[in-house]
Amino acid sequence: MGWNSWDCYGASVTEAEVRGNAEYMAEHLLASGWEYVVVDIQWYEPGAFSSQYRPFVPLEMDDHSRLMPAPNRFPSAQGGQGFKPLADFVHGLGLKFGIHIMRGIPRQAVHQNTAILGTTQRARDIAHPQSICPWNTDMYGVDPAKEGAQEYYQSLFDLYASWGVDFVKVDDIAASRLYGYHKGEVELIQHALKQCGREMVLSLSPGPADVQQAEHLKTHANMWRMTDDLWDLWEHIEVMFERCHVWTSHRAAGHWPDADMLPLGHIGIRSVDGGGCRLTHEEQRTLMTLWCIARSPLMFGGELRDLDPWTQSLITNPEVLEMHRTSEGNRQLFRKDHQVVWTARGPRNQLYLALFNLAEASGQICVNLADLGVASGTPFLDLWTAETANAHSDLAVRVPPHGAKLYRFAVQL
Amino acid sequence: MGWNSWDCYGASVTEAEVRGNAEYMAEHLLASGWEYVVVDIQWYEPGAFSSQYRPFVPLEMDDHSRLMPAPNRFPSAQGGQGFKPLADFVHGLGLKFGIHIMRGIPRQAVHQNTAILGTTQRARDIAHPQSICPWNTDMYGVDPAKEGAQEYYQSLFDLYASWGVDFVKVDDIAASRLYGYHKGEVELIQHALKQCGREMVLSLSPGPADVQQAEHLKTHANMWRMTDDLWDLWEHIEVMFERCHVWTSHRAAGHWPDADMLPLGHIGIRSVDGGGCRLTHEEQRTLMTLWCIARSPLMFGGELRDLDPWTQSLITNPEVLEMHRTSEGNRQLFRKDHQVVWTARGPRNQLYLALFNLAEASGQICVNLADLGVASGTPFLDLWTAETANAHSDLAVRVPPHGAKLYRFAVQL
Amino acid sequence: MGWNSWDCYGASVTEAEVRGNAEYMAEHLLASGWEYVVVDIQWYEPGAFSSQYRPFVPLEMDDHSRLMPAPNRFPSAQGGQGFKPLADFVHGLGLKFGIHIMRGIPRQAVHQNTAILGTTQRARDIAHPQSICPWNTDMYGVDPAKEGAQEYYQSLFDLYASWGVDFVKVDDIAASRLYGYHKGEVELIQHALKQCGREMVLSLSPGPADVQQAEHLKTHANMWRMTDDLWDLWEHIEVMFERCHVWTSHRAAGHWPDADMLPLGHIGIRSVDGGGCRLTHEEQRTLMTLWCIARSPLMFGGELRDLDPWTQSLITNPEVLEMHRTSEGNRQLFRKDHQVVWTARGPRNQLYLALFNLAEASGQICVNLADLGVASGTPFLDLWTAETANAHSDLAVRVPPHGAKLYRFAVQL
Amino acid sequence: MGWNSWDCYGASVTEAEVRGNAEYMAEHLLASGWEYVVVDIQWYEPGAFSSQYRPFVPLEMDDHSRLMPAPNRFPSAQGGQGFKPLADFVHGLGLKFGIHIMRGIPRQAVHQNTAILGTTQRARDIAHPQSICPWNTDMYGVDPAKEGAQEYYQSLFDLYASWGVDFVKVDDIAASRLYGYHKGEVELIQHALKQCGREMVLSLSPGPADVQQAEHLKTHANMWRMTDDLWDLWEHIEVMFERCHVWTSHRAAGHWPDADMLPLGHIGIRSVDGGGCRLTHEEQRTLMTLWCIARSPLMFGGELRDLDPWTQSLITNPEVLEMHRTSEGNRQLFRKDHQVVWTARGPRNQLYLALFNLAEASGQICVNLADLGVASGTPFLDLWTAETANAHSDLAVRVPPHGAKLYRFAVQL
Repeated sequence: MGWNSWDCYGASVTEAEVRGNAEYMAEHLLASGWEYVVVDIQWYEPGAFSSQYRPFVPLEMDDHSRLMPAPNRFPSAQGGQGFKPLADFVHGLGLKFGIHIMRGIPRQAVHQNTAILGTTQRARDIAHPQSICPWNTDMYGVDPAKEGAQEYYQSLFDLYASWGVDFVKVDDIAASRLYGYHKGEVELIQHALKQCGREMVLSLSPGPADVQQAEHLKTHANMWRMTDDLWDLWEHIEVMFERCHVWTSHRAAGHWPDADMLPLGHIGIRSVDGGGCRLTHEEQRTLMTLWCIARSPLMFGGELRDLDPWTQSLITNPEVLEMHRTSEGNRQLFRKDHQVVWTARGPRNQLYLALFNLAEASGQICVNLADLGVASGTPFLDLWTAETANAHSDLAVRVPPHGAKLYRFAVQL
Repeated sequence: MGWNSWDCYGASVTEAEVRGNAEYMAEHLLASGWEYVVVDIQWYEPGAFSSQYRPFVPLEMDDHSRLMPAPNRFPSAQGGQGFKPLADFVHGLGLKFGIHIMRGIPRQAVHQNTAILGTTQRARDIAHPQSICPWNTDMYGVDPAKEGAQEYYQSLFDLYASWGVDFVKVDDIAASRLYGYHKGEVELIQHALKQCGREMVLSLSPGPADVQQAEHLKTHANMWRMTDDLWDLWEHIEVMFERCHVWTSHRAAGHWPDADMLPLGHIGIRSVDGGGCRLTHEEQRTLMTLWCIARSPLMFGGELRDLDPWTQSLITNPEVLEMHRTSEGNRQLFRKDHQVVWTARGPRNQLYLALFNLAEASGQICVNLADLGVASGTPFLDLWTAETANAHSDLAVRVPPHGAKLYRFAVQL
Repeated sequence: MGWNSWDCYGASVTEAEVRGNAEYMAEHLLASGWEYVVVDIQWYEPGAFSSQYRPFVPLEMDDHSRLMPAPNRFPSAQGGQGFKPLADFVHGLGLKFGIHIMRGIPRQAVHQNTAILGTTQRARDIAHPQSICPWNTDMYGVDPAKEGAQEYYQSLFDLYASWGVDFVKVDDIAASRLYGYHKGEVELIQHALKQCGREMVLSLSPGPADVQQAEHLKTHANMWRMTDDLWDLWEHIEVMFERCHVWTSHRAAGHWPDADMLPLGHIGIRSVDGGGCRLTHEEQRTLMTLWCIARSPLMFGGELRDLDPWTQSLITNPEVLEMHRTSEGNRQLFRKDHQVVWTARGPRNQLYLALFNLAEASGQICVNLADLGVASGTPFLDLWTAETANAHSDLAVRVPPHGAKLYRFAVQL
Repeated sequence: MGWNSWDCYGASVTEAEVRGNAEYMAEHLLASGWEYVVVDIQWYEPGAFSSQYRPFVPLEMDDHSRLMPAPNRFPSAQGGQGFKPLADFVHGLGLKFGIHIMRGIPRQAVHQNTAILGTTQRARDIAHPQSICPWNTDMYGVDPAKEGAQEYYQSLFDLYASWGVDFVKVDDIAASRLYGYHKGEVELIQHALKQCGREMVLSLSPGPADVQQAEHLKTHANMWRMTDDLWDLWEHIEVMFERCHVWTSHRAAGHWPDADMLPLGHIGIRSVDGGGCRLTHEEQRTLMTLWCIARSPLMFGGELRDLDPWTQSLITNPEVLEMHRTSEGNRQLFRKDHQVVWTARGPRNQLYLALFNLAEASGQICVNLADLGVASGTPFLDLWTAETANAHSDLAVRVPPHGAKLYRFAVQL
């Protein structure tokens, strides 16, 4: 659970904005479990101003082909200190610090043929001639077959460890319209991370990752995207039901299929579209309910300092977050056309039921509680309204269009 | 674990042959856990003589559009008794009885527009106009949206229950070059099975099933094929390593990915090719090792009455079958080019290790035992040779081409 | 140029309707060149009532597996006379008579294993086990490798020749979502036609035919569809511009890429949708202009006896039809986004120019006439308005949305 | 007809080698019609030494982002003279001079953001961020939508015109495994060529070009490849029969589908494989026969100065080259499994027939001459053996495996 700069600031977040969000998180959200602060893409691009990348521009780079924070955007990085001062600040608040990187080595390093730490090979020797990202011109992929390739990634993670990084989101690696899954570079990265001496969460983007690669993903990363970038559009949420279902058998401690960020609150400040969240309250609650019962990592996308009370309550509901943190056996119970029901178990024999209505009209969703071991008369809680009631053998609830209900039952064994 | 008539007799097995194999199994193999006797495809085709289907020929059918055993091939089925007498015989030996069916309703029923039990709809009303099998002309698929479709499948399973069937292999349903996975008919069948009042194992063919459908398969069937028909060719075995790996997260009690039959011993009597198994002893041991450590269902394909001692020992090794029956956490430990290593745990803290060499030349395979929690000096057993030795921190074994080694370690917790 | 029953009557046209349209054509349209009268699909299905096919129903068939006109719909066919009386009637009006057939042999013939004329093989022997039509259940495809396959098709064309058929539209053959182009059956059919002793136009459906097969189509058929069924929807017309362009090099005397019927006038009487043409006058003129300058065969789809004066004028414009009949070098001159310009030459050095505006707003289309050899001051004719003007070096015309202009210039050589 | 450096020298040909081949051509082959001398890929790469490209290395470039001949390989290019001195030399021999270029703008220009002649835009402004070649790292594609894109290509062709270039082969443009056909850049190039004031043949590579793009290719280029690189392997030749057939309607004066170079004689000197031609004499004759009767452009790939008498006779047969130069109506007459027959007409009513046997065993090929208008008794010539004979109504010839026969008949009209 954390905050990521992409949904508000695109490629252009500044140190002041990161610090401001971190402070807000420490004060208002840490108690609910929100703790990661992640600087997303292109912190090394001095002229970044939105979510549109400027092609082929010069990037901030050290003498060993490693990208460095642009000091005009991250003043504390001056003098080659990198993200160490900012990470220290975040750690001082009791939080954790994360960064985004692109798979590969900077194209400018390759064309200048600069050095790589720990090997006599140079940038040109390890770059893959045809491995590019289909949406950004910063990097060439690294060819795992080349001598020096492993050393390059180790030099990156050694640097990040020295900064105190706790979380690394690697992009253009889990799925590519051009090349699919970059298995070889994932292996280089995981090996580099293991040897660097610091624990970091490894997150792979973008999606949709291929479920055929599930076993490899689970043994090489902590989270990976089930989807391409998710925005505040109902269509994006709707398809996630199938994705979360397909990945059901693959979620467990240490490795999580990722439904992407929560594009809620004040988003789009210097990013795509913008001006705030285009989802209705019902749709936002549906999103939060699915992400939590499917145990997706939660990364908030909005500017925290502009958080309105309603959105804050949505992301700090203690009962919902307890389910997100502790439930097991999370899975789709059934899907009938536009009605989807998920279930999960809590560690003290709680039964969770989430009822989703994906239709454009309200509809009644029915679940046989007896089949699930819920005795008639058992009290249950509506997690979003905090109301309680007693169970009958069937649960029949009217759910608004695009809406969700979330219940917790105490089950006698 | 059982025997299936396909690999020896194609579509043409007779009652005498089934009885003979059942008797052999009861006497020689039941003690090792072999218990199912399955009559494969086209028991309703009076003129079947090999594994080549005769297109468009008349089939044995009752008045309710249900295919019946051809009495010329199954004399005990005369007088409308169906497979009841044969099933009784098999049960009398302490074994279980299974049959194969094709998805759908006979084309001859549709063109004659015959009746269906339990509904006023007729064959023409429930057949799907374009749903055919790409390799056999017996049936049209059933359209799940049609009234009467569920009743038809119920009438089938009610009949099979009345016969005493314990196992149903449904074909042309798990994967089709024309149409993919027939989700709707799988649901009809599972529902029909549940209501029929008799427990039966539900097996879906052919493969390769789509791993995207894993959650549906697990909740609607007991086993499903990971492969198209597997024959006694090394290429067929080789690709199973990747398939077994991809399905790793989806095997558990009650639902098993199926690597298909064991084409060993005297096969091909009236089927494809024929004359005996074309795999070397090394390859057969590799096959048996993979099937067992991946916990695939085991269905023997050869004529049991011709079983040679070597093959019999291969399929009755008690240590190997214990692993097949009781191990957990079965998974590929790593794969490096042509070297594959699988591992599993036994219920008394045994560690199983299977080393496979898929290359054309022998090679040394190394596994770090310390990483797996095996202390130096721990004794271990070679399950195929019954030799024991003491472990070092590394296991380094020379494995012949296409060969396998299988070890069991006692692990201290 | 002719009339086809599909767009008004689907699969259900009756003899009276065919005779009525033929009489109208002879009286009002023959002088403009309209001469073929074509009975479309399922004239052998007694119960056909719309464009929806009834699956698996019995069809009218002779003793040699050949479908025959249903006498309840075509009374003159009684007594085994087939379409001979109706063809005679049409011929008596000075017109030509055509029929539609489906590729293959009736499924009912195959399941009854009926005889085939001229061979001892029977229906079951020549049917291809898996070759079905993806949208109709009448037939199985014929396997060209089978003995008797050629004889079957010869028996069909001998029959049609005896009836006096002038035009045969073969369906489910030029493109199939399931199987692509049925090259082998096209060859059987062309050979059967050649040997039958009567000239017939051979038309292949549906489309889109694959341009990779152009050389085969040109040497084996007279016309073939560039599109799936075309209806009175702007989207259907819009895509035809690219199709007509792609097939440019393949149109010539004797073999014509076919843009499908003109869904104009009173269509949809017992067919899809219905009630009349949903295209605006502008769109209809665009359609007629493109079909004529691309020299597509013209088959009118509306009920001729309900022809309104505007539509009649559209399809009988003598200048436009002269271009359709005699022009050469027909091709797209250029396409810029939503502006398309076609050109052609007439036999007396006329230059034709068709200007199309596919956009949703009106726009000015400019053509450099000097480049085309048109001298300034040359008089030219607007073929649709019959107005004349004198050319400048550039032609700049405002064209309404979805509209077309068609001009003819006299070019000095 | 000409010589191209690729098959012998890969990317590494030198000026001396070009001059040597040009001199040989002028002396020995010009009389037979061979006249183009083409310098293939990477003449701007100082370190090129084979057909393997060195990724990301610095290239010779002028101040306007235009690649220039590497002076160490082309001494006469020193002082910014480019290919002018070499072209002058070639012209002085009575020959024509051609070069190869890659689609796009040098990556080094983009990363250095160098100037473009005739516009204030710079290299970075016109490069397409994701348009790369899948097999070479020299260039980025140019985005046709960008201001300055047209000016860049004009500055290239102005330069080539100033050098006296007669032929330009543009690569990575007609087909790409990544991106298909680069229509927009083809249009930029054709426009640049038209305005440069010098006639040049425009040749597009690699293939296989998409036949759907035939109309665009014909109006924008003089030749385009029907195949990926063709080497001296039978499999490469075998597939060309279908390709030449598919493109039949699209060959005419000014625009020719190109079957690629003749990999004959002493090839592979510093290129792939090498050491000489791996085709048998029969196969070489088959290749030459197909290329000539399909009127493909002929570009010889071997070192001319090492030409052996047999190969020289193969490429200078006057009767065969006359057919190549003057025949019309060139097309496949029929194909039956491994037998292919092509035909063409000469301007004085000659009929050409080429008989090909693609099988592994010799076979008799029969052609009905009467159907082709050849009267019995007509004398005819075997173009390869120079023998004559008199025609019967059928021609029946035994053709060796992979072999070809080529005949010319005088046809009475």
